[in-house]
Amino acid sequence: MSKPSLPQGTRDFDAATVRKRNYIFNTIKEVFELYGFQPLETPAMENLETLMGKYGEEGDKLIFKILNNGLDNQAKADKIKAGFEKVMTGRSSKDITERALRYDLTIPFARYVAMNYNQLTLPFKRYQLQPVWRADRPQKGRYREFYQCDADVVGSRSLVNELELASIYATVFQKLGLPVEIRINNRKILSALAAECGGAEKMTDIAIAIDKLDKIGIEKVNQELAERGLSQEQIQLIQQFLEISGSNEEKLARLKTIFAGNSTAQEGIGELEYIIEKFQISNSESQRSIDVTLARGLNYYTGTIFEVKALGVQIGSIGGGGRYDDLTGLFGVPNVPGVGISFGVDRIYDVLTELNLFPADVYSGTRLLFFNLGVAEAAKAFELMQELRAGGIACELFHETLKFDKQFKYAEKKGIPYVAILGSQELEAEIIVIKNLQSGVQEQVTFTGLRNYNFDGRERA
Amino acid sequence: MSKPSLPQGTRDFDAATVRKRNYIFNTIKEVFELYGFQPLETPAMENLETLMGKYGEEGDKLIFKILNNGLDNQAKADKIKAGFEKVMTGRSSKDITERALRYDLTIPFARYVAMNYNQLTLPFKRYQLQPVWRADRPQKGRYREFYQCDADVVGSRSLVNELELASIYATVFQKLGLPVEIRINNRKILSALAAECGGAEKMTDIAIAIDKLDKIGIEKVNQELAERGLSQEQIQLIQQFLEISGSNEEKLARLKTIFAGNSTAQEGIGELEYIIEKFQISNSESQRSIDVTLARGLNYYTGTIFEVKALGVQIGSIGGGGRYDDLTGLFGVPNVPGVGISFGVDRIYDVLTELNLFPADVYSGTRLLFFNLGVAEAAKAFELMQELRAGGIACELFHETLKFDKQFKYAEKKGIPYVAILGSQELEAEIIVIKNLQSGVQEQVTFTGLRNYNFDGRERA
Repeated sequence: MSKPSLPQGTRDFDAATVRKRNYIFNTIKEVFELYGFQPLETPAMENLETLMGKYGEEGDKLIFKILNNGLDNQAKADKIKAGFEKVMTGRSSKDITERALRYDLTIPFARYVAMNYNQLTLPFKRYQLQPVWRADRPQKGRYREFYQCDADVVGSRSLVNELELASIYATVFQKLGLPVEIRINNRKILSALAAECGGAEKMTDIAIAIDKLDKIGIEKVNQELAERGLSQEQIQLIQQFLEISGSNEEKLARLKTIFAGNSTAQEGIGELEYIIEKFQISNSESQRSIDVTLARGLNYYTGTIFEVKALGVQIGSIGGGGRYDDLTGLFGVPNVPGVGISFGVDRIYDVLTELNLFPADVYSGTRLLFFNLGVAEAAKAFELMQELRAGGIACELFHETLKFDKQFKYAEKKGIPYVAILGSQELEAEIIVIKNLQSGVQEQVTFTGLRNYNFDGRERA
Repeated sequence: MSKPSLPQGTRDFDAATVRKRNYIFNTIKEVFELYGFQPLETPAMENLETLMGKYGEEGDKLIFKILNNGLDNQAKADKIKAGFEKVMTGRSSKDITERALRYDLTIPFARYVAMNYNQLTLPFKRYQLQPVWRADRPQKGRYREFYQCDADVVGSRSLVNELELASIYATVFQKLGLPVEIRINNRKILSALAAECGGAEKMTDIAIAIDKLDKIGIEKVNQELAERGLSQEQIQLIQQFLEISGSNEEKLARLKTIFAGNSTAQEGIGELEYIIEKFQISNSESQRSIDVTLARGLNYYTGTIFEVKALGVQIGSIGGGGRYDDLTGLFGVPNVPGVGISFGVDRIYDVLTELNLFPADVYSGTRLLFFNLGVAEAAKAFELMQELRAGGIACELFHETLKFDKQFKYAEKKGIPYVAILGSQELEAEIIVIKNLQSGVQEQVTFTGLRNYNFDGRERA
């Protein structure tokens, strides 16, 4: 028998990890709800045709496809074989696979909106927190199964949505105790830049190149732009643009000057100004800043774009999003504008761990272990436990009548803070000895008094 | 462009459904925690060899296998083709597929325990609530993606575990307001019956056949037993056994008589007696009963077995489980006894819906909609919303300045109970008009008084 193992790039989450992850998930969900967003869940599997062609050529290759069942039916063999040739030459075949695992939450959301468009109340505000799967090469911090966490509003062009989403970022990271920089830009400005550089078709080239500015530096960006066919003059204009600096107000002023007379740019600058002016971060060490170099690689963004960086740690963005014009057009329902943000929950987990920001009570499991000191004693313990549990105290009875030290060791290993000792003498005297394992303090409590004993914080309902 | 659709047997869950499902999930999780069980999560994908051969021949066919990526690499073509022949003849090939989707939570749990055995504190008590996937033919109430919800203790032979698990059933269904019958039996008794009927190898035949008693009746069970090679004499003995009736005490007495002198049976009867005696259901309309016809099809049960039926509705079991001796033996770690239960959460959802048992506040989303009546008004509304949200009130600002009736309609459709009207007059007077949409009652509130207004229940944190 071979030793069991996990598929590459996947993880088991033990209790402590689940609790810390849920702390992040619940904080985000709570804020989404405070802002009127409602939950949605879609299945892990989508039809292959729903996903294929939506993530570019590279993305398509990283989609996990599910083998059709019933391939052991001999009658189907020839048909399947023909289909398989297609798979091998890079096409897919319905005879082999017609389903795949969700690659992100955006396309399933677009599919959902398109399928249910006539029943939805617009603007439709949903959040979604589910795992996705990608056949990426696993490496540190990159997994084949990981959670995404998105909030989107569709059916509204109002900038109120951008303001609300920016506030959600600020509120979530404030609740998590993590100071961040919320970077904001507008694709219309980049689009205008592209137009000034020889045409809208240069937009994607420019966006992809300057998105790498942080990682590869201005020289390499210029080189990449040259490779993508831009002239030296155009590259200089872009460089001038990328060098815009100062306060948010100074950046806005400079942008207005550079793009004087370009109506698309002015529209974008106006939106940026509105958001910066209305979106104030209070009670928080977080910052908000215009970042003209922020491009975000995804093609479908058309207006405001966001990115969130944690302050004080070296790690990539822990959130991002933006406005798009026509996501559901892919599924036959055109002209549905929307805007959304997402949280990089795995990275947020890493940052909170590095900065030691998880609250102490996040680990809380069982509060009290009853020692098992005999049949009659255990029976009484069982009865008392039912009362405590009804009052919200998580407790356990050790499963066997073993020596004290074995039972102590179990409590210690599991991090249970209190033990209850109920032997034959205690049973007769109708008392119980409660010991706090951390302080070593021991107290006698009556059976009836037990329910009011303070075990340092009740389990949350 | 073809209309988007969902894969057969899968579902989207809208907000109301997610909330109702979470109500069930959270109730169960809360009780698991009160009993000292800790969460575990395993990945959706397992190595194919972890899953294959664990669910019988039929089960193997229903496992969703994941196509290896990189099959479009021509260099691999011949190797893959050879592998594909194996897939078509019912075997699997690592060249085609080496991963599959989780089919249940039990085998991944066994794999986890085997992989981490030396680090675990025994007894190890875990709960797990995650989706599983099966390529079953979809039909009413049967899905290809559905949630399982399990609690198991491994590393202990103590009957305390059985008592705790039975109590968990009673507590969960009491909290859900759903009266149930908790049926209990012991595989040792069935095993003794098999021995009396010509040998231990008949155990599985008998168990599978009598498990169908409820569905197909005694005549067909007898017929199935005959087909499985049992003699008329043996069938009569089984029938006599199945006809045991009366109170739990009467059943125990009858069992003791029938199996006088059979030590395996007496052991099982003793365990059954212990559980029935110690496990009392208080404050609950639920019942606990010995059911000698309860067999449960799964081979790996060796002691106590459980099944839960909802009272007052026609539906299959909504929970089940039992004791097993050697689950991790499959993965090279033998002799780890365990006992576990599971909740049929999809069926529980259907039962609560049919009996109208979901609490009214389960649907609660946004509490308050601010009408959008102009730029300055909206800015003030935005400010007030931040205060309310800090106090836990979920609120929204309508995204555009539209006519009153459009804004009312949005609140109505989304089931938002309160609207806040803040026009130019109110802005000047520093008041706000709050209208309860259900009662029609309207009240004026000052800006500073708003934070203390009672919106009928705050959002839960």
